[in-house]
Amino acid sequence: MQKEAVKKNERVEEVFNLFIKHIQAFLQEAKLNHEEYTNFVKWADRLGRTGELPLYADVFLETHVLQAMYTDKPGTQPSLLGPYFIEGSPLIEQVHGQPMVLTQRADEAGEVLYFKGNVSGTDGRILANTKVEMWHNDHSATYSAFDSDAPKYNLRGHFYTDENGDFLVKTIVPVPYPIPTDGPTGEFLNYMEQHPMRPAHLHIMFEAEGYETLITQVFFEGDEWLETDVAEGVREDLMTKLVDKGDHKEASLNFVMRPE
Amino acid sequence: MQKEAVKKNERVEEVFNLFIKHIQAFLQEAKLNHEEYTNFVKWADRLGRTGELPLYADVFLETHVLQAMYTDKPGTQPSLLGPYFIEGSPLIEQVHGQPMVLTQRADEAGEVLYFKGNVSGTDGRILANTKVEMWHNDHSATYSAFDSDAPKYNLRGHFYTDENGDFLVKTIVPVPYPIPTDGPTGEFLNYMEQHPMRPAHLHIMFEAEGYETLITQVFFEGDEWLETDVAEGVREDLMTKLVDKGDHKEASLNFVMRPE
Repeated sequence: MQKEAVKKNERVEEVFNLFIKHIQAFLQEAKLNHEEYTNFVKWADRLGRTGELPLYADVFLETHVLQAMYTDKPGTQPSLLGPYFIEGSPLIEQVHGQPMVLTQRADEAGEVLYFKGNVSGTDGRILANTKVEMWHNDHSATYSAFDSDAPKYNLRGHFYTDENGDFLVKTIVPVPYPIPTDGPTGEFLNYMEQHPMRPAHLHIMFEAEGYETLITQVFFEGDEWLETDVAEGVREDLMTKLVDKGDHKEASLNFVMRPE
Repeated sequence: MQKEAVKKNERVEEVFNLFIKHIQAFLQEAKLNHEEYTNFVKWADRLGRTGELPLYADVFLETHVLQAMYTDKPGTQPSLLGPYFIEGSPLIEQVHGQPMVLTQRADEAGEVLYFKGNVSGTDGRILANTKVEMWHNDHSATYSAFDSDAPKYNLRGHFYTDENGDFLVKTIVPVPYPIPTDGPTGEFLNYMEQHPMRPAHLHIMFEAEGYETLITQVFFEGDEWLETDVAEGVREDLMTKLVDKGDHKEASLNFVMRPE
């Protein structure tokens, strides 16, 4: 315990010292003057007090954390967890030969989507019995437990891949949505002349023993916000195609996890 | 107006892009993993919600902003403005041949200090009629308008240099004090194994037409916290010596401002 505490302190100190080193390099290049610094601190204070700091960090920084770690590494690229994940989603009942149905209201609006996936490792292993957690927004572009009046776990759930690493889940097609714009994050968007939209996406997270947890998102070809996603979360290997099947859409994607 | 808005946007975008570039360099060197990133965001959220973000920025970042801008430049080194400056301090009455008396209570505790200064420019000019703003803590180590129960402008005031660029002010000797430790800033100090103390200092700010506003601090030789100041605000050319004169102390320092 004592040893771990010391180790943790050293790591915090190491990270802080590196942070200062790079912040100084930034300040030297940006030539931030004292007034700009003061304006920045005032804005950051508003961001903090309104509770928008995690939103800002998730939208504008998290993707860069992930790119710094994963670009050019084999395996499926991660994308941001985002601010809309909650713990405790229900286990979706699995009936052999039937698609799993993501928690939804009886009259859930939107286009029906059958999404098929396969999970394997960069080591070539099929990853049977991998925990798959999914969450996404509803047809009115809101998330349950946040800005939607749907039940807490609506369009949220988890399940497991079968013996071939496959899963098939029935849900609805998610829709593009704007991040909140009425606070300091919106001020920042105005300054950047950046729209607040994210392209439609499924959030998906995989946990398999002996592998790095993979947190990522699935995007759909043709979405008008792919190129200018406010959170820059889109990666080429996270794209799928919505295939029109008359009364429903189908899409699929393979996911490749990294051994720990 | 329109033109200025565009210019401001471009500057924000330029600064943000540089910030991201250097943050990525930081992330690549620090190899911050996703859990460390998440822990950092949770801590920063607490920092923001408690309103401690300006405190943290002033104590741990501002000095680096200043060092990035001014180290090796001629003229008096700036030091941090800090979180304890307030607008609207009283004009101190000037009686020819008498020291100005900084606003204080009739029975103000502490050692009497006569502080003498001279203000000139790096261009060699004597800076007469320069506005001098001073503020510092009292003998119980608290600041008026913040953690002290003294009147709002106690130990705060402004006045002007005479025709020789000189001023002489009567006040009390400030004392070392700890920054607040009961919130997320204190958590950070614990991790860094850093004490919360700042050495005793006078805050002083100079405004003269045609010169950069100089915001700095004055420190006293022999203070036990000079080497380990939590805010790293001490600079060699901001040091003075407290000379014992029996019933009071005397100290002096010359300040050199930079043409705009």
